[in-house]
Amino acid sequence: MEKEKVVLAYSGGLDTSFCIKYLSDELNLEVHTIYADTYGANKEFRQELTRKAYAAGVTSHHYIDIQQEFYNKGIKYLLFGNVMKHQTYPLSVSSERTFQAIAVVNYANELGAALLAHGCTGAGNDQIRFDLVFKVLAPDKKILSPVRDLNFSREKEVEYLKNKNVNIDFSKAQYSYNEGIWGSSIGGKETLNSKDFIPEDAWLSQCNQETVEELNIEFKHGEAVSLNGQSLSQLTLIHQLNEIGSRFAVGRGLHLGDTIIGLKGRIAFEAPAALMLIKAHELLEKHVLSKWQLQIKHDMATVYGNLLHEGLYLDSAARDIEKFLESTQSKVSGIVKIKLKPFSFEVIGVDSPFDLHNNKFGEYGEESKLFNASDVKGFIKLYSLPIQLQHSVNP
Amino acid sequence: MEKEKVVLAYSGGLDTSFCIKYLSDELNLEVHTIYADTYGANKEFRQELTRKAYAAGVTSHHYIDIQQEFYNKGIKYLLFGNVMKHQTYPLSVSSERTFQAIAVVNYANELGAALLAHGCTGAGNDQIRFDLVFKVLAPDKKILSPVRDLNFSREKEVEYLKNKNVNIDFSKAQYSYNEGIWGSSIGGKETLNSKDFIPEDAWLSQCNQETVEELNIEFKHGEAVSLNGQSLSQLTLIHQLNEIGSRFAVGRGLHLGDTIIGLKGRIAFEAPAALMLIKAHELLEKHVLSKWQLQIKHDMATVYGNLLHEGLYLDSAARDIEKFLESTQSKVSGIVKIKLKPFSFEVIGVDSPFDLHNNKFGEYGEESKLFNASDVKGFIKLYSLPIQLQHSVNP
Amino acid sequence: MEKEKVVLAYSGGLDTSFCIKYLSDELNLEVHTIYADTYGANKEFRQELTRKAYAAGVTSHHYIDIQQEFYNKGIKYLLFGNVMKHQTYPLSVSSERTFQAIAVVNYANELGAALLAHGCTGAGNDQIRFDLVFKVLAPDKKILSPVRDLNFSREKEVEYLKNKNVNIDFSKAQYSYNEGIWGSSIGGKETLNSKDFIPEDAWLSQCNQETVEELNIEFKHGEAVSLNGQSLSQLTLIHQLNEIGSRFAVGRGLHLGDTIIGLKGRIAFEAPAALMLIKAHELLEKHVLSKWQLQIKHDMATVYGNLLHEGLYLDSAARDIEKFLESTQSKVSGIVKIKLKPFSFEVIGVDSPFDLHNNKFGEYGEESKLFNASDVKGFIKLYSLPIQLQHSVNP
Amino acid sequence: MEKEKVVLAYSGGLDTSFCIKYLSDELNLEVHTIYADTYGANKEFRQELTRKAYAAGVTSHHYIDIQQEFYNKGIKYLLFGNVMKHQTYPLSVSSERTFQAIAVVNYANELGAALLAHGCTGAGNDQIRFDLVFKVLAPDKKILSPVRDLNFSREKEVEYLKNKNVNIDFSKAQYSYNEGIWGSSIGGKETLNSKDFIPEDAWLSQCNQETVEELNIEFKHGEAVSLNGQSLSQLTLIHQLNEIGSRFAVGRGLHLGDTIIGLKGRIAFEAPAALMLIKAHELLEKHVLSKWQLQIKHDMATVYGNLLHEGLYLDSAARDIEKFLESTQSKVSGIVKIKLKPFSFEVIGVDSPFDLHNNKFGEYGEESKLFNASDVKGFIKLYSLPIQLQHSVNP
Repeated sequence: MEKEKVVLAYSGGLDTSFCIKYLSDELNLEVHTIYADTYGANKEFRQELTRKAYAAGVTSHHYIDIQQEFYNKGIKYLLFGNVMKHQTYPLSVSSERTFQAIAVVNYANELGAALLAHGCTGAGNDQIRFDLVFKVLAPDKKILSPVRDLNFSREKEVEYLKNKNVNIDFSKAQYSYNEGIWGSSIGGKETLNSKDFIPEDAWLSQCNQETVEELNIEFKHGEAVSLNGQSLSQLTLIHQLNEIGSRFAVGRGLHLGDTIIGLKGRIAFEAPAALMLIKAHELLEKHVLSKWQLQIKHDMATVYGNLLHEGLYLDSAARDIEKFLESTQSKVSGIVKIKLKPFSFEVIGVDSPFDLHNNKFGEYGEESKLFNASDVKGFIKLYSLPIQLQHSVNP
Repeated sequence: MEKEKVVLAYSGGLDTSFCIKYLSDELNLEVHTIYADTYGANKEFRQELTRKAYAAGVTSHHYIDIQQEFYNKGIKYLLFGNVMKHQTYPLSVSSERTFQAIAVVNYANELGAALLAHGCTGAGNDQIRFDLVFKVLAPDKKILSPVRDLNFSREKEVEYLKNKNVNIDFSKAQYSYNEGIWGSSIGGKETLNSKDFIPEDAWLSQCNQETVEELNIEFKHGEAVSLNGQSLSQLTLIHQLNEIGSRFAVGRGLHLGDTIIGLKGRIAFEAPAALMLIKAHELLEKHVLSKWQLQIKHDMATVYGNLLHEGLYLDSAARDIEKFLESTQSKVSGIVKIKLKPFSFEVIGVDSPFDLHNNKFGEYGEESKLFNASDVKGFIKLYSLPIQLQHSVNP
Repeated sequence: MEKEKVVLAYSGGLDTSFCIKYLSDELNLEVHTIYADTYGANKEFRQELTRKAYAAGVTSHHYIDIQQEFYNKGIKYLLFGNVMKHQTYPLSVSSERTFQAIAVVNYANELGAALLAHGCTGAGNDQIRFDLVFKVLAPDKKILSPVRDLNFSREKEVEYLKNKNVNIDFSKAQYSYNEGIWGSSIGGKETLNSKDFIPEDAWLSQCNQETVEELNIEFKHGEAVSLNGQSLSQLTLIHQLNEIGSRFAVGRGLHLGDTIIGLKGRIAFEAPAALMLIKAHELLEKHVLSKWQLQIKHDMATVYGNLLHEGLYLDSAARDIEKFLESTQSKVSGIVKIKLKPFSFEVIGVDSPFDLHNNKFGEYGEESKLFNASDVKGFIKLYSLPIQLQHSVNP
Repeated sequence: MEKEKVVLAYSGGLDTSFCIKYLSDELNLEVHTIYADTYGANKEFRQELTRKAYAAGVTSHHYIDIQQEFYNKGIKYLLFGNVMKHQTYPLSVSSERTFQAIAVVNYANELGAALLAHGCTGAGNDQIRFDLVFKVLAPDKKILSPVRDLNFSREKEVEYLKNKNVNIDFSKAQYSYNEGIWGSSIGGKETLNSKDFIPEDAWLSQCNQETVEELNIEFKHGEAVSLNGQSLSQLTLIHQLNEIGSRFAVGRGLHLGDTIIGLKGRIAFEAPAALMLIKAHELLEKHVLSKWQLQIKHDMATVYGNLLHEGLYLDSAARDIEKFLESTQSKVSGIVKIKLKPFSFEVIGVDSPFDLHNNKFGEYGEESKLFNASDVKGFIKLYSLPIQLQHSVNP
């Protein structure tokens, strides 16, 4: 009898390697792995990934670069919305899981696999993001999650693989990294408590600059389209900004957030491109959007970020917010200048044909052609009226 | 016949010095000036201020330190709310005007003056903040604003004073500063356009540190009560933080905002204490408040900030929000560690008895005592349900 | 020398009739009136209007039916958003002014007139709605508002016209009506105080039904497309609903709102079609939209309503919200049944292919195929967790 | 050996009667029932309840009237917030469960019982409201829910009780009612679909009035304190309003809402007092609160209602919102007149010393003493400015 096919979201780590062997040997399944890349892994990593997958016993391994998809359907809107969870975290990791899960479903449909698997434990948010997408987009497929179900410890997984003669080096690193184009997260012993910051050498990159550097980022309808005068694809531009920013060690942070599970969770992150782009985009918007646009954008973007963070990207509300965000970007075009320093950056200023600040009506605080003292005094009379009423009635 | 008394909000600058002379000589009024200090001016400044006031012709000059009032009724709530206009500006200047205006009214009541005056031009927000408070709290007093009414240029004012033999040095500085305890603002030729940043030496303070420095700030019910283990009054603590932060040149920024007048306005600011306190307080809150508290606090604080910024502090809505904010602070107690570097600072972590992160229920991402894999899978079933429904009905 | 042309927004009432004569005789202008109909005036009214305009001295009078424009650009979005100011008032009148002002500008452009005029007094919201549109869309044209500028009383206007031999009957009615397709407003001595309701015979229509009547309204993508099975244009459908509803005296209300001017204002209104459509549409949405869609729609629609109410329809933010609202309507299709009774109506139920309530997943409160007791208990464990944490840390 | 004690939330219905017998006979527990009354049951009902409890085998039965507690900690704030879920449902039932659960925990503490039980099925919201309160307030007690765990059908429960010789009449009623002081809910075959309305005789009360009746409700700091001039306790006043309103059949509705479980749920409800009080209170607030107070109150009250509806009353956020709501009520005092008609009621008007509408500053739309035409024109210039800027930059 033919074996049933299962498609497993594979990361090359211990958990998912254990899943391969377990699904194959214990559940007697034909295991197909997929690595949905939201980072732009290099050739060596990809080759090593393939090697490990086959060493653990897959029938096939598939690599797919979903960076463009992730950008088009996720990052773009996070940037439009200047989404920073609690004014801190650009949702680097939480946003990419959903797109990886979608890639798994699509691949399973292609292969005709009726089973989906992931290697998440039962303790984090990622299991929810994977399961939810699987259940919604593939309601007829079954979900397997061996690590969660068996509640195996790291040690038990290593032992199981050794007994099965799977020879992969799984010595535990001191810090765990999840690298992505919109930022990487770092977990370690410091992030498990509330007090400590991760040590300098635990960051993915260290500052090696002593002077400053200026960058010009051009936005068109809210998307970054050129860097220092050179037109670039969005992905290339983000990668270049990550590279430049990491030399200055900017974009670092430590986030304490509410997880879907209900506990508070703490994570260090390093997101140079995301933070520079968001802060540049945010400043440009302050110049070209109306007060009302800025206000409702902020509120809607907060909801959008929460939906993504909490794995609810597939709710129709997210589609509606995307249409809104797109509409707000029609004039978000212009050049923003950034100055990098070791460990920090400043957003210097903007140059935009749609700038509502630098315009023919004159400048704030300077004498205006549009109104005179008498006009302002009339304005103030009416502007004060509601509060005068309140204090008159309730002295 | 006795002269009518006018109380003038005096800053020692050209505009208000002109007002003294004009009110006194042209309108034949008995001019009483008041300087409502939100900054903590030193003795020299205060003596010079008195000297200038009398040189311009006041009948009396009064100095009043309103820092404590400003803290109790304004800053405290701005901190409770982590208020940063557009995620950038701690409302350093816009918040203090209202309290200065209130001080003017109170002083006029004391003196029995039926006239109130300020030196604002007709082009900015400050005239609105002054007028509104005057109209609301002193509906029976008349407001005089000679600079606005005459639309006199700087040059005309200087000429007028010279003709009147008022000998004060009013040579125009290249940059104008408004110094306050919650931050100082800086205006200059760069802030009139959209592109440029003010030059290094235009900032009030320059970085003179090359290494890092760690600070421990203790909060009690949302207020900062000690620094590095030493109990301090709130005002002293803020002043010390401003002093320390300014040596590292942290807390600098450039804000582009919507003015009450309707134009966009741009300002540089330097607010080391405000930014360090807000970021420290914000992190502590992420540890001790629930997800729902964080969310509604953010929304309410945005409204509160807008009311203050737009001169509407006296609207009853602000009182209601203050009660709300107070209620949220009951557990916002603990120590926050900050690390200062040249031009930037990091918020390291917190130590609080009310920490919802570091607790006996176990840690996020680690195996929990409170739920198992089966529980989570049940959770996900129901959590996914609304979106499954949507996609089932609308595939 | 040729006279300058002015285009006057004409209503046929005393104020605008006075304007015609005044603009023509005192300012020596060539007066062209326009009546921008948001109501569907009958032939008699239109003929009478023309007669009056010429009697008062216009060079030309123009009638334009802008109901379709008003529907396409305003009403449609008010319905999408279920906009009811303070849960009460469908913005019947406040929304139509902006579209009338736009029609005036367009007509002036056609005629090549450099002057625009309206007959508003200086005491209400309408002057603001007119002026704002004029200033924004025709910054080079000048605005004339004789009634406001002269501050003429009703009596003075009548006397002026009599002296000019303008023979129109301007005997003051006891109640003033502003009739529009999305509802009519009624002002009278009762609306000037806070206590009284207008008397039965002051309403535009009286109840003449004693039994009930059921209606089926079909919506397609949020718009009402058929009534009792008969396909109708939106305008016809609204007119029919107004006619039916008025026989039952439904859709009446009294609104107390905050005016742009800053005072509170009180108005009676009669909006049978608007209220029935909004309540029917709202119920349909509860069936077909997700919880998150409902929530953010409500918030955005509130802002949209406020923008319209406060004359800020031309702010770009309104365009962004419209895109959002359109996106939310893709599944808002189905039939809603309404039952009319004297003075009230009930929304009975819906029948929609996109209904998320009546679906194959089973019914709320009944045994479900999708989860069992163990699943729910797992769900509750995690759902309770944040609050358990709070009470554990702060018992 | 002594039996363990369990406290069971008892309603007198089939499910909880089954629980008594099952907990007692199968789990060998000492069963103590409690009926936490949020309705004001009459003597007959209470006696019958006691009889049934003992017939089913309780060791003790306890009745407690928690109406005052429910009012003080729940209803009061729902009224302050004018809470109507989706502008429709006053949360009649969803709000009372939490307070019943709290009463159960308190009683179990008194008795020293380590076990808590409820009779909810696994399909609805109530299990979540009970479990959550139990887990949060009594983390050391165990929760039993036999009906949910066994997944017994109604028929099986009846059979089980018959076999145990429990003689209670459990013939199924066609409609199920949950009666409470803040409104009663009705479920039946019509509420299981989306189209139908429950028939006239299924409502708890029918209209027996043919004329109108006027009521005067006096509010003091947001609470209703007298009816038609007679001072009453809040509970008495609500009961009287329910009695009066039910004679006119007002306060009926049909709600379609999102359940905690994730499905949509539909329920009919009858809440005459709640709807009359909310609409009267809402109108009074429009007269005495500022525009900003009204706006933020609405947003906060929506969150408060959602917290209660979703069983999250014990989240600290609810306490913070309560402080806010209390603050907003300081001037919500005055008399509101209501007119009842068969099947509907109108809120006529208000009389309040804090009325911001009817005041000495003059009336909206009438000539004002506070500003003139020139003032308004100045106001409009500045008010228009932001939109003029937008259209100037982006024509």
